[in-house]
Amino acid sequence: MSSYSNHPAVTVLGLGPMGRSLAGAFLAAGVRTTIWNRTPGKDRELTALGAAGATSAEEAVSASELTVVCVVNQQAADAILRRAGVARALKGRTVVSLTADTPQRARDTARWAAEHGIGYLDGAIMTPAPSIGTPEAVFLHSGPRDLYERYRPVLELLGGTHTHLGEELGRAATFDLALLDVFWTAMAGYAHAVAIARAEGVTARELAPFAQGIAAILPPLFEEFAADADDGTYSGEINPVTSAASTMAHVVEVSESHGIDAGVMRSVEGLARRVIGLGHGGDGFIRAAEVLGRH
Amino acid sequence: MSSYSNHPAVTVLGLGPMGRSLAGAFLAAGVRTTIWNRTPGKDRELTALGAAGATSAEEAVSASELTVVCVVNQQAADAILRRAGVARALKGRTVVSLTADTPQRARDTARWAAEHGIGYLDGAIMTPAPSIGTPEAVFLHSGPRDLYERYRPVLELLGGTHTHLGEELGRAATFDLALLDVFWTAMAGYAHAVAIARAEGVTARELAPFAQGIAAILPPLFEEFAADADDGTYSGEINPVTSAASTMAHVVEVSESHGIDAGVMRSVEGLARRVIGLGHGGDGFIRAAEVLGRH
Repeated sequence: MSSYSNHPAVTVLGLGPMGRSLAGAFLAAGVRTTIWNRTPGKDRELTALGAAGATSAEEAVSASELTVVCVVNQQAADAILRRAGVARALKGRTVVSLTADTPQRARDTARWAAEHGIGYLDGAIMTPAPSIGTPEAVFLHSGPRDLYERYRPVLELLGGTHTHLGEELGRAATFDLALLDVFWTAMAGYAHAVAIARAEGVTARELAPFAQGIAAILPPLFEEFAADADDGTYSGEINPVTSAASTMAHVVEVSESHGIDAGVMRSVEGLARRVIGLGHGGDGFIRAAEVLGRH
Repeated sequence: MSSYSNHPAVTVLGLGPMGRSLAGAFLAAGVRTTIWNRTPGKDRELTALGAAGATSAEEAVSASELTVVCVVNQQAADAILRRAGVARALKGRTVVSLTADTPQRARDTARWAAEHGIGYLDGAIMTPAPSIGTPEAVFLHSGPRDLYERYRPVLELLGGTHTHLGEELGRAATFDLALLDVFWTAMAGYAHAVAIARAEGVTARELAPFAQGIAAILPPLFEEFAADADDGTYSGEINPVTSAASTMAHVVEVSESHGIDAGVMRSVEGLARRVIGLGHGGDGFIRAAEVLGRH
């Protein structure tokens, strides 16, 4: 690329699959892009496309107004950002962290950044690396709104949808964790369902269309249960926890009769039994959200 | 109703919310319907609509060519059907069990029915009672195809979609259990996500639209993972189990930092760690289906 866009230059720290996709999307949009990775050798494809390969993190962050960090966790991000030379070079610049970790660690690093005169936004990428640069990508952001608005145009070059969840710095990480909680728990349920189906002579392909039907009924229930959880109403008229617990016991029984570990469903059933034991057996299962959070 | 349809008369045993809905749908379709419940007093609304209230199970099953049983579990169904007088009255007639229980207990009762000259089909209702008689209802059936085809027209009066899953009698119960495994595990994940979101200051209503987005990405993954599970291919290129386990550990950490029980996610993470420990850390998470079923 011989000419650069009007967008500020961007540095990408971290060249795992996601970092490489981010840098690639900036390059494709004509952004002057500098890249760096802790272990070398991951930048060749990108430098061939026009990225500037920095030889140190300090050199990398000095090259751009905006630095995007996407490494394995916040500890790895801090190990780069909080080095004295890097912190000095970042003063007056802005960091967008797209590193997944806990809300608390995101807030800690934001506090450190503020103390060092560094602008800081925390974000989460909810879709896999191949989605970057496509309409399928989903980004969540949190932190100072003015800072977000300033860099939104360049962040939007990464494709997909971008949502600013609020100024409280931990919100992107909170949403990220909560949504991955739903995702991985559901996936564990699916893997277990496939295991018991196969033990009973049903293939995963036979089960899949019906499992897709189950996934399709979740969205309206999520909405209904959200209202119940926020309002403290837990109608179990159609499907009380007592009835759910009986189903869960059947899943555990069939699973273990085939020697299949039922640990996840045993925990789910235990939660339902706890809700019942606390006197809420006639409520809907979402009463569990309140019971889980009791102190 | 002064005139009855061409459909055979039907007896409904069990007048809980689901049994009442089934009987109501048969009545609405003009079917001559006889009803009975172990504990009396649940038939008034239906007899007012034209149902014949039987005074005993024996009298009830004698009134119709087809008996539909929908009670709390197979033990309760057996306690009715296997009484000598009832078994005698059922000889030469057909029972459709819509009682939810394990595949093994469904097969046991089918074997008993065959020994007593009783036609037997086992089915599962995948949708709540209010769906009965509407296009939303979903019924799964298993057992002899000729018997299913004979009674399909009358069963279809219950509304919704009806699928015959095969002659193997346990298939309806297997699909039912596997699908409820997915459903309740996903719901437990959602309840837990709501609990940690709220502890971090995010309401369930704020989270819900994004949780709905997560539910929307499950169907294509279920299809892809079904192919992986059946074919023994477990590509983790985009999202290896090692990466998922790291996310799961964050969910556990944040949950427990708020005093929120993380038992379900601890089990999910334990499963991921087991997959990694068995040398499959670079695979996709659906490798868990195979690991769970190992002997």
